[in-house]
Amino acid sequence: MFRLEREEGCARLVLDRPEARNAIPASGWAELAALVAEAADARLLIVAGAGGSFCAGADLADFASMRGDPAAVARFREAMRDALDRLRALPIPTIALVEGHCYGAGVALAMACDIRVAARDAEFAITPAKIGISYPQEDVHRLVALVGPGQAARMLFGGQAIDGEEARQVGLVEANSPAETRLIAAILANDPASLAALKQAIARAADGVRGDEGANQSFDELIAGEELARRLEGLRRK
Amino acid sequence: MFRLEREEGCARLVLDRPEARNAIPASGWAELAALVAEAADARLLIVAGAGGSFCAGADLADFASMRGDPAAVARFREAMRDALDRLRALPIPTIALVEGHCYGAGVALAMACDIRVAARDAEFAITPAKIGISYPQEDVHRLVALVGPGQAARMLFGGQAIDGEEARQVGLVEANSPAETRLIAAILANDPASLAALKQAIARAADGVRGDEGANQSFDELIAGEELARRLEGLRRK
Amino acid sequence: MFRLEREEGCARLVLDRPEARNAIPASGWAELAALVAEAADARLLIVAGAGGSFCAGADLADFASMRGDPAAVARFREAMRDALDRLRALPIPTIALVEGHCYGAGVALAMACDIRVAARDAEFAITPAKIGISYPQEDVHRLVALVGPGQAARMLFGGQAIDGEEARQVGLVEANSPAETRLIAAILANDPASLAALKQAIARAADGVRGDEGANQSFDELIAGEELARRLEGLRRK
Repeated sequence: MFRLEREEGCARLVLDRPEARNAIPASGWAELAALVAEAADARLLIVAGAGGSFCAGADLADFASMRGDPAAVARFREAMRDALDRLRALPIPTIALVEGHCYGAGVALAMACDIRVAARDAEFAITPAKIGISYPQEDVHRLVALVGPGQAARMLFGGQAIDGEEARQVGLVEANSPAETRLIAAILANDPASLAALKQAIARAADGVRGDEGANQSFDELIAGEELARRLEGLRRK
Repeated sequence: MFRLEREEGCARLVLDRPEARNAIPASGWAELAALVAEAADARLLIVAGAGGSFCAGADLADFASMRGDPAAVARFREAMRDALDRLRALPIPTIALVEGHCYGAGVALAMACDIRVAARDAEFAITPAKIGISYPQEDVHRLVALVGPGQAARMLFGGQAIDGEEARQVGLVEANSPAETRLIAAILANDPASLAALKQAIARAADGVRGDEGANQSFDELIAGEELARRLEGLRRK
Repeated sequence: MFRLEREEGCARLVLDRPEARNAIPASGWAELAALVAEAADARLLIVAGAGGSFCAGADLADFASMRGDPAAVARFREAMRDALDRLRALPIPTIALVEGHCYGAGVALAMACDIRVAARDAEFAITPAKIGISYPQEDVHRLVALVGPGQAARMLFGGQAIDGEEARQVGLVEANSPAETRLIAAILANDPASLAALKQAIARAADGVRGDEGANQSFDELIAGEELARRLEGLRRK
């Protein structure tokens, strides 16, 4: 279902099941969790789909075997949660590159990344209400953090698709293609220790933290450190 | 002041005092609370104004009798709070359809709904600073949740009107008319149990909740349940 | 570095070091804190830059003396925090008027104001990752509150510049010039006691507060008070 590619400092996690628009089978989440762990030594992780779609969501075919078996659903829910939370917790920047379909759990996958860049004609929809199910609490929390409670209600209640341009307007994605080319180059040129500190600061802020001793210490050490002097010297020489 | 209409699964709460642009008198809030309770068995509640306006706000004429009497103001504040919080707490999706004026407490009424759809030339303003009063803390909280602290400051400090298109851009409304037609049809076609679970999840998320045993249980039960199988079968037959 | 001007009820804090695009030296933060205290009796504070730029950020030249000395960095960090938090805590409305460059700590300065109005061709960038440092936790919190965690990641990780129009689209600024002219006039025409109450309500809301006894009491007293009657009479006479 997934494969991990490498080029220079950049890892690329590819959803590779184009015949099913990269729908993720229940067994796929453990595979995702394992590849995320493997990618942790890269400087940047890109998540993208093969064959023109990002991800059609969870594979609906798996739901038949969970019928009447809440314990089986709980295992599915926990495997999905574990994979998405590991992706979310990677200390390196992560970017979802979305083209084509991005549906249901595919949106949760994109939201587990730090940044989302989408083609203008990509198609986003969160559709649990269409088929009589719900959406994980943590993923609803991420949706509300990105688009606010009103757009979250509109998307979750209606289940209607919006395109990549509207997704950018409402805050579900941060930029439209081809913005990723320069963004990726900019991130790879930046300092990995800074990026790790800033990612932690954003995660704390999203939890309502305004001040933090760890953040202060990291701030002080980076300004007192050697990398700043080295980079300022590099800028002077330009 | 208010009347409740029904058509199929959809209830419609109409502000019906067009001669005052649907300004709500102090006595109107108890009436609103009662009608909200009545609407709870519908599958969707629409809130709209008669005569081309949504709501001009609280009826300013009532303030004369509250002069020098903070206890009377407290009763007014509590009646308004009670009605808006009951609307907010309805387990079904709620949509404010805004055309024309939406001022002061009218914005609080719209924000008590899950979703707001506005005509492009609708006119939104929150004007307490113009007349020397404040705005309820809970409604300021909802405003900040929708538009952020910066746009909240701009709207509350200036009291200037913005049109329905700008209201969409800043996040005060989720869509511009005539988007409501397809949105309402989509919601009515969706599963009521899903909608209730998703509405609860959004409310929890807005309170900062990322994980929740109740949410997990509801998630598991819906996927293990009969409605999913029924709806997937329906999709296959299409 | 800074000077404070007055005209009618309005104070204007000017960053006046145009030869350095108003970059703020380490010594500037104490000066800023002092002038903020002086401005507290105005009805509105505007923060703006001289010479066509808002602020290029912290003066990078100061970092050389902090190398290898985390205690010196801590003093710098605390001076910056103190000045920005005093600005943030002023009980009067504050507006950052941004033209030209607004970089690094300049963005933190703009975010310490209630409202930001920017020229369409202004240039915003938060660049710590470019030079190997971090950004204060509180300022990351304000950034996330304004633009959400996704745009915060895009801006902080890439360090790329966005113009004033895009800054408005993503929520970093609330309006583009020349909207400030009418906004300032509107605020100055509004009731100072209302503005103070509303500013407090927004600050509480940003901390997650939905109900508050102080907010209720202020709400009740203002509606029971004389200013409302006076202003309603003024509106009737128009």
